[in-house]
Amino acid sequence: MSADPVSSRRATAPFSYRLDARDGPARAGVFTTPHGDVPTPSFMPVGTLGTVKGLVMEEVAAAGARMVLANTYHLYLRPGHELVRSLGGLHAFMRWDGPILTDSGGYQVFSHAEIRQVRDDGVVFKSHLDGSSHMFTPELVVDIQRALGADVIMAFDECPPGGADHAHAREANRRTLAWLHRCRTRFDELKARGGYPAQTLFPIVQGNVHDDLRREHAGQVLEAGDWQGTAIGGLSVGEAKPDMWRTLELLDGALPADRPRYLMGVGYPDDLLEAIARGCDLFDCVAPTRNARHGTAWTSGEGQVNLKAARFREDTRPVDPGCDCGTCARYDRAYLRHLVVAGEWLAIRLLSVHNLRFMVRLAEEARARVGDGSFHSWSRAWLERYKQGETR
Amino acid sequence: MSADPVSSRRATAPFSYRLDARDGPARAGVFTTPHGDVPTPSFMPVGTLGTVKGLVMEEVAAAGARMVLANTYHLYLRPGHELVRSLGGLHAFMRWDGPILTDSGGYQVFSHAEIRQVRDDGVVFKSHLDGSSHMFTPELVVDIQRALGADVIMAFDECPPGGADHAHAREANRRTLAWLHRCRTRFDELKARGGYPAQTLFPIVQGNVHDDLRREHAGQVLEAGDWQGTAIGGLSVGEAKPDMWRTLELLDGALPADRPRYLMGVGYPDDLLEAIARGCDLFDCVAPTRNARHGTAWTSGEGQVNLKAARFREDTRPVDPGCDCGTCARYDRAYLRHLVVAGEWLAIRLLSVHNLRFMVRLAEEARARVGDGSFHSWSRAWLERYKQGETR
Repeated sequence: MSADPVSSRRATAPFSYRLDARDGPARAGVFTTPHGDVPTPSFMPVGTLGTVKGLVMEEVAAAGARMVLANTYHLYLRPGHELVRSLGGLHAFMRWDGPILTDSGGYQVFSHAEIRQVRDDGVVFKSHLDGSSHMFTPELVVDIQRALGADVIMAFDECPPGGADHAHAREANRRTLAWLHRCRTRFDELKARGGYPAQTLFPIVQGNVHDDLRREHAGQVLEAGDWQGTAIGGLSVGEAKPDMWRTLELLDGALPADRPRYLMGVGYPDDLLEAIARGCDLFDCVAPTRNARHGTAWTSGEGQVNLKAARFREDTRPVDPGCDCGTCARYDRAYLRHLVVAGEWLAIRLLSVHNLRFMVRLAEEARARVGDGSFHSWSRAWLERYKQGETR
Repeated sequence: MSADPVSSRRATAPFSYRLDARDGPARAGVFTTPHGDVPTPSFMPVGTLGTVKGLVMEEVAAAGARMVLANTYHLYLRPGHELVRSLGGLHAFMRWDGPILTDSGGYQVFSHAEIRQVRDDGVVFKSHLDGSSHMFTPELVVDIQRALGADVIMAFDECPPGGADHAHAREANRRTLAWLHRCRTRFDELKARGGYPAQTLFPIVQGNVHDDLRREHAGQVLEAGDWQGTAIGGLSVGEAKPDMWRTLELLDGALPADRPRYLMGVGYPDDLLEAIARGCDLFDCVAPTRNARHGTAWTSGEGQVNLKAARFREDTRPVDPGCDCGTCARYDRAYLRHLVVAGEWLAIRLLSVHNLRFMVRLAEEARARVGDGSFHSWSRAWLERYKQGETR
């Protein structure tokens, strides 16, 4: 159903996905973009405003990250997509030569902004910064993302909260589908004009945790184009974990095996493994840097720990003795605890480096385990150790 | 007057100072410590709580810093000097193998803490953190600094504010001198017990901007020991600039030429050059990182600039086109302005790297200019350009 289904599947196409191995529903592959390959599963750090909070992109690369995310909503408000374009686009602006994905702004307008009106032609909202009024239409969201110039851009979607009832979720699906057609039309128009870097548009499947709506929406979305990948939205927004896992299992059967699936906004280490087990490939979450701001670090043997704890006062071990990040190589818990307690910025930075590497490495290891067929036993044992550690 | 004047001057002594060149009162030398040489003049970054705010020590070293300062008062309160000792001392704690200087705590108790009582036996004060009561005696201040293990430690001093009258300043001098004797006695006792790293104790000359008191105090302090260096306190605390320069000129004649002079708490780029011109060798100030937190950067051609300014919105030049720091090598004003306006931590970090390198390099260049006899003409031209830039 693509305008050019043959060329979009050529080996020389700017975007492609190669499925290397499967272990049950878990997948190992490579997503190729104009800015490089992304071995999947892969965790994408979030650079909301064109910076992964507190880190330089050399550190993000050193953590093993291959693709990063930036936020359409935030960059539209500040500094403005036209300014980013005039400064050479997002890759140049944020000093990142690797692949970038920008989100649709849908989640942000529905969660951060004060919504004035959700209409079929778009969403009227007030900026969380200064209360100024704005309207996102599907066309504007594509325009913004074309100006930013990320490799992968997202169609505008309505993202209802986790507890949305069937009628609300159904209405959101309808609107999201109509917006998808408009996004695609705009994207094709702009592409035809040329002069832009190669980009691909991912649709977002919504439907909350209503099985029939998820199934229906996935089918409609896939019929709307020959997409190079699909995003799964509307999860990790407050629903119960079992509902999320069931929805992913359902979608694993509904989405094409030969294209990557991006699970938006996930997540924590345990969620990552659970989602990989259910066939997801790409992930993003602000948790590595947000947790760092709270003094929290992930460890493989002790679960999630807060460095403020008095028991770390004289602890000269690294945060996670098995970790290969720059923080664990050089700093101990006693010093990090001191920095956290004293409210020193260096704590946030050093814990961000660790947490980011932790998530990236977890995805890397999952990929290797899928490759040798040991994913499910390894992941079960990993989760057990991680959760036992947390309850100690 | 030293207990061991011969050995303290041996080439193999842990501390020594070599005066390489003079250009008028301006000096170029090398201060040798157990943790390495410090070519002077030298700007010391401040690592208040065992971290130069926001930076890793590799960045501090990359900025060219040779010796760093840490704060006795702050580290005593948090995490506590005994904990630092048990973790291997300040060098190990803050991951810095180069020379460290700890201050006396005098300036801090007189400026940050709520003073309860200034008595001849010490100062009773309330912590700025939790209001708890503490007392600094000369002996305790030496004990704390022995535990921290810096290379250069400071005698406890009373530091009156910039506007202190003659009687107040005279009383502070009397007390500072009495405390110096007690510090030295304690230092010698602890040294005799052994088991500590090599340290040297610097006295602090006080007297505000009262010429007779400065002259008298310098004489008394020098008589009290064969110090490896002398600190000049009680300046840059609110007095008028001409008073500061006159005081430094007076002290240049009063302090021995063959020992380094450390001007405490100075300063900004123009102050640094003015003080070097008057024979000072070592400097410290929190301004590079504090200014960075306010979005402010130093430039050689435009003086001090605030990156928030709208004129930087599309400015793709580095902060200071002539600068060789990591920030100027890789980032432009437009991106830095965006980070500053958005309140992103990365702004603070990148501007700290620049500001720190700016000060360190200014001292490096001053040293080279003293070496070839061009210091005074160069420094006049530099100051003129810097100040013209500021008023543009």
